[in-house]
Amino acid sequence: MNKIYQVNNLSEDYIINNYLRKLNFNKINTFNFENDASYIFLKNKKVVITTDSISQDIDFFRGDSPKSIASKITTINLSDLSAMGVMPNAYLLNLFLPNYINHNWLSVFTNELLKIQKKYNFYLLGGDLSKSNKLILSSTFLGLSKTDNILSQNSISLNNDIWVTGNLGDSLIGLQLLKKKISIKDIKMKEYFINKYYYPQPCMIGSKISKYASAVTDISDGFIGDLKKMLNNKYGAKLYIKNFPTSSNLKKIFQSKVIENKYILNSGDNYDLIVISSSKHRKKISNLAKKNNVKISLVGKIIQNPQIVDDSNNSLNIPQKFDHFR
Amino acid sequence: MNKIYQVNNLSEDYIINNYLRKLNFNKINTFNFENDASYIFLKNKKVVITTDSISQDIDFFRGDSPKSIASKITTINLSDLSAMGVMPNAYLLNLFLPNYINHNWLSVFTNELLKIQKKYNFYLLGGDLSKSNKLILSSTFLGLSKTDNILSQNSISLNNDIWVTGNLGDSLIGLQLLKKKISIKDIKMKEYFINKYYYPQPCMIGSKISKYASAVTDISDGFIGDLKKMLNNKYGAKLYIKNFPTSSNLKKIFQSKVIENKYILNSGDNYDLIVISSSKHRKKISNLAKKNNVKISLVGKIIQNPQIVDDSNNSLNIPQKFDHFR
Repeated sequence: MNKIYQVNNLSEDYIINNYLRKLNFNKINTFNFENDASYIFLKNKKVVITTDSISQDIDFFRGDSPKSIASKITTINLSDLSAMGVMPNAYLLNLFLPNYINHNWLSVFTNELLKIQKKYNFYLLGGDLSKSNKLILSSTFLGLSKTDNILSQNSISLNNDIWVTGNLGDSLIGLQLLKKKISIKDIKMKEYFINKYYYPQPCMIGSKISKYASAVTDISDGFIGDLKKMLNNKYGAKLYIKNFPTSSNLKKIFQSKVIENKYILNSGDNYDLIVISSSKHRKKISNLAKKNNVKISLVGKIIQNPQIVDDSNNSLNIPQKFDHFR
Repeated sequence: MNKIYQVNNLSEDYIINNYLRKLNFNKINTFNFENDASYIFLKNKKVVITTDSISQDIDFFRGDSPKSIASKITTINLSDLSAMGVMPNAYLLNLFLPNYINHNWLSVFTNELLKIQKKYNFYLLGGDLSKSNKLILSSTFLGLSKTDNILSQNSISLNNDIWVTGNLGDSLIGLQLLKKKISIKDIKMKEYFINKYYYPQPCMIGSKISKYASAVTDISDGFIGDLKKMLNNKYGAKLYIKNFPTSSNLKKIFQSKVIENKYILNSGDNYDLIVISSSKHRKKISNLAKKNNVKISLVGKIIQNPQIVDDSNNSLNIPQKFDHFR
């Protein structure tokens, strides 16, 4: 931690001492944030590293709850680690803070981080603070591989199963509600979708299933977009459209025709996992998911022809996805 | 690398394929930037980690050469690694790109990164691309400790020597010239100082001298400010004012009274090292510096009384430092 500055009359030292220090769990390798850097020490282990950023007006709105922002910056990175088959160990945080950031914001934000850190057992290793006209957060996460069996995306084979965890589309509906592009009268249902948008949860089953998987990725840009990246023009996919998992609330939305269900295949901000695996592991994966309380659905299989088709072999004409940038 | 976006009609894939891919030196652990994360594998070694960011209108001007920006984002992190006694191994890069970024900018920027990577032997491990209204760069560097002797700032003892590498103040003069707060007629001299501001160089002698040092830090916020952080209110320092290293050009500036020399003690954007070490290693440190072509000057010693005094024991009344933010 090493840049002197003030934001909203809060000095860097003040922010570190009052809000960030508690996040290092007193690990000696963080040097209590007093050195130019920190370190990790790992005996013959692979360290998986990922980095992701979120920005005001792109990934969240100005005025969004700091709780939601803490949830987003961690989920976006945690789900990347899960996709690589590892659990988190530590992270670094680069905060670009505008003047509207105050004590209350920092307190709620760091308490939410603390909660998430305790849930998944990782600590803050270091970071950097800067002034900015917009709120931007950048974070680098380190995960440990227990098995040394780190997943790569290019071990897919013909006839592999395609799975997806959780439910698709809820977060997209939440965003469309906030942007007033759609409306729902039922207040409880409205809140359900908006919460799914504000508080994405990472699906941390990756480390449990990695040894049975050919490839895993987290859905950040929509199911179709991320599946296409996995296929890498080498294979295609046949999708079992009726198997795509949706919440009971989303099913009601479809019935009342608030939105067409084909949009769901491209909805991002979700962070569930796409898992591709040999059909011989079908039972194993299904059981592991059940054991870990994770919903998982078999939604397709790998085919030779490098395109994406539905159950009747019709090429899927997916509408343009919603703009990632507001 | 995993965010789909466009800036100035350049897609993420295009930027990765055309400009960033060359920076990974074909290391298999980067997965050719096709996975959700990358990894490092180290046998029983400590990995030193640091992260730092630079922002348009704070750390550089809009329109500054991409060469200069590449030099700054690497130097600020490399000198942190050097201060911890290690050499770089790999880095991650988070780029927040405004619409004025074009092919030429990306080409010059990444070619300069390539040059710096080859010079110090490190590669790009991964990163993240986002849109932004201002250019912001955030980077996380990983360094390897050969000796397992990672430096902490709190092993300072009474009567330790205080050293500083390089020359102080040149970069500050360059910035003051650019801000038109001072003026120099001699065009060559003006260029000299401005180049020192635009192209800071890390002093990478840290890994060579770490086993003889009690504490090392890089000067980012000015000599006095960073020394104070090292002393941490536990010790003081007596400074040998006449020993402070300045370039021959800076000496000329002092003579013509363009600026008072006391400002130099607080000039930042420098990235030379402050080294504190036992006086029994004085010869060793001086020889190692010479052998590695690094200028090093003995500028003070650690005293009990926790304040900073000059040769005649007068407390140093340093003027307010220049504002870090433009």
